[in-house]
Amino acid sequence: MSQYRTFTAGDAVAYAQQFGGLENPSALVGAQEVGDGNLNLVFKIFDTEGVSRIIVKQALPYVRCVGESWPLTLDRARLEAQTLKAHYQHCPQHTVNILHFDPELAVMVMEDLSDHRIWRGELIKGVSYPQAPFQLGEYLAQTLFHTSDFFLHPHQKKAQVAQFINPEMCEITEDLFFNDPYQIHERNSYPPELEPEVAALRDDPQLNVAIAALKHRFFSHAEALLHGDIHSGSIFVAEGRLKAIDAEFGFFGPVGFDVGTAIGNLLLNFCGAPGHLGIRDAAAAREQRLSDIRDLWNTFAERFQALAVEKTRDDALAYPGYVSQFLQKVWHDAIGFCGSELIRRSVGLSHVADLDTIADEEMRHACLRHAISLGKALIVIGERIENVEELIARVRQYS
Amino acid sequence: MSQYRTFTAGDAVAYAQQFGGLENPSALVGAQEVGDGNLNLVFKIFDTEGVSRIIVKQALPYVRCVGESWPLTLDRARLEAQTLKAHYQHCPQHTVNILHFDPELAVMVMEDLSDHRIWRGELIKGVSYPQAPFQLGEYLAQTLFHTSDFFLHPHQKKAQVAQFINPEMCEITEDLFFNDPYQIHERNSYPPELEPEVAALRDDPQLNVAIAALKHRFFSHAEALLHGDIHSGSIFVAEGRLKAIDAEFGFFGPVGFDVGTAIGNLLLNFCGAPGHLGIRDAAAAREQRLSDIRDLWNTFAERFQALAVEKTRDDALAYPGYVSQFLQKVWHDAIGFCGSELIRRSVGLSHVADLDTIADEEMRHACLRHAISLGKALIVIGERIENVEELIARVRQYS
Repeated sequence: MSQYRTFTAGDAVAYAQQFGGLENPSALVGAQEVGDGNLNLVFKIFDTEGVSRIIVKQALPYVRCVGESWPLTLDRARLEAQTLKAHYQHCPQHTVNILHFDPELAVMVMEDLSDHRIWRGELIKGVSYPQAPFQLGEYLAQTLFHTSDFFLHPHQKKAQVAQFINPEMCEITEDLFFNDPYQIHERNSYPPELEPEVAALRDDPQLNVAIAALKHRFFSHAEALLHGDIHSGSIFVAEGRLKAIDAEFGFFGPVGFDVGTAIGNLLLNFCGAPGHLGIRDAAAAREQRLSDIRDLWNTFAERFQALAVEKTRDDALAYPGYVSQFLQKVWHDAIGFCGSELIRRSVGLSHVADLDTIADEEMRHACLRHAISLGKALIVIGERIENVEELIARVRQYS
Repeated sequence: MSQYRTFTAGDAVAYAQQFGGLENPSALVGAQEVGDGNLNLVFKIFDTEGVSRIIVKQALPYVRCVGESWPLTLDRARLEAQTLKAHYQHCPQHTVNILHFDPELAVMVMEDLSDHRIWRGELIKGVSYPQAPFQLGEYLAQTLFHTSDFFLHPHQKKAQVAQFINPEMCEITEDLFFNDPYQIHERNSYPPELEPEVAALRDDPQLNVAIAALKHRFFSHAEALLHGDIHSGSIFVAEGRLKAIDAEFGFFGPVGFDVGTAIGNLLLNFCGAPGHLGIRDAAAAREQRLSDIRDLWNTFAERFQALAVEKTRDDALAYPGYVSQFLQKVWHDAIGFCGSELIRRSVGLSHVADLDTIADEEMRHACLRHAISLGKALIVIGERIENVEELIARVRQYS
């Protein structure tokens, strides 16, 4: 019955009627495809008033990218749905609600967040959501603690590690994050004027050994069920609200990866701010980003610590003082992954609007150079940055 | 056809005739059960000359232990067979050869090693196998390198991580290794005279935080396909030869666990030597054990390093200098796991003959105390012991 076929708008409406859980499903009458069309189909399903009520998202079996056809497993829809369901179970207030999922069709039906906006765009415009960094810290603490060895029974943890093995999506990260920017590779993308800075990445032994260590931890440290791609573009915000979406990179990996990419995207905004705002507003935005990073980390660490004290099930890991030591490991990992996020978003295939949409070329190049040099510094000296205040001091030093 | 039933000697002979790969299978005429009967049936299959030619090993669905019935998955036979086959693929000279395996019967047919002896017994008697530490280092380097992220394609590695998920056997280690000795637990086993030393383990915050960190790494660091239970009792030796057996604890875990338990068993022999040998012979045996540890580690590290230089497939991990940094992580992990092996073999459920068969009670207690205090020191100061020469100096200091 549900063998894979690409959905039409009509299919999407019918599917939303059947699985959207609305009291009056026949009120759903129209659909608009709003995805970028490269990776997934995303339909907003409208009611008779023209209000978007439900989202229907279908994975496509390929991604068209840099001119080449790149097949991509439909199983990523299962991984996304199951990751979001697991995260929703532990943090419903900050995870998009998956209402239905069909593995064969690679389709999920989810709550509509049309009254939210993508955080990245708001950050670029300088629109403030004062709760967002706290909420993101809460999301990371809840989802990562409850899927870690602190909380899961060892049998359950091992079964979930197997369930969330995600070879194809992890490979994208393994390549784009940890390889391409440190090699000459056709997938890399940066202005030719930055060639000296990029060449210097390839020629830095300390940096490359540190990147190898980060990649090895990404490969092998199955600490918790990560979102795997948590950045300001996969986070919806509204006044007092925040929801994570798009978890198709979900797998069991190092906790510091999610934390580090989240912090990294605030730093990318920090680097790009002068390209979008006037001098005074940019300075204020930068201060705000540093404050956001402090709030995000402190919330994450305090909540994770509190959850560990309250709910750790493993006798050995529950020993007083151990969770602090673990959070120190997470912190150092996070700084490293944060640094590599800065570099791969400046040099690699996948960029961010915080930097790429800066109209003035000279300014754009200056901001990219800033992101590269800051990223490099964080990767190399990450092990010596002991806490978030030292990180903030270092960021100021590299500004 | 092959639904589970417990083998008789006759079944074992018939099975060996069918799957033993001998040219004249009808020459196999008799069987003797030589297992301890608690965990597995182990049959030696004899030919008409009375020579043992083949081993048939069958897992029992339970282990009778400390008076209680303890069911145990038959799937451990699959995990053992598949681990040994994987290790044999990379190091045939030091891994027992599995000729046939049936998952439903939980039976494997393997090469006969009757001309070998269990290394532990030889170590206790003071019989020297000068090649053994080098060969064990070679075994660890070959098997752990070739199943690590350095060598396996990331897709293959992830599939194997799932294939070797081993919840029940890992749980035994998780409990016996990292929990019981640091708690009051009915499974623990030690003379009442040692209560002060054992109570001090429970009361040492630094020790317990370090044990939590080791357990967390055992839970989450999927670095390579471990043997999982490599000690002098799971190693057969003969003149110039060494073969690892009994891999039912195989899973993807931290490389330092296998290395550390191997070193730990040499140190257990070091601690027990005065209980089995005269003063002069015991002193010589101790020097030999320290030399064995040096040879084991140096062989392991040099071979792993050489394999990494020659055969690493991952671009990032191949960066010059990274493997040395990783081996330093392995070293520190190994010291910690080595220390916990000393303690769990002295205090926990499962002991070793090196200590337990010491006839003189006072001497036995002294040797046990030595193992406990040395184990504790290694766990706590492990991060500060930079290399094998420092380890040897510390061991002398605690003698």
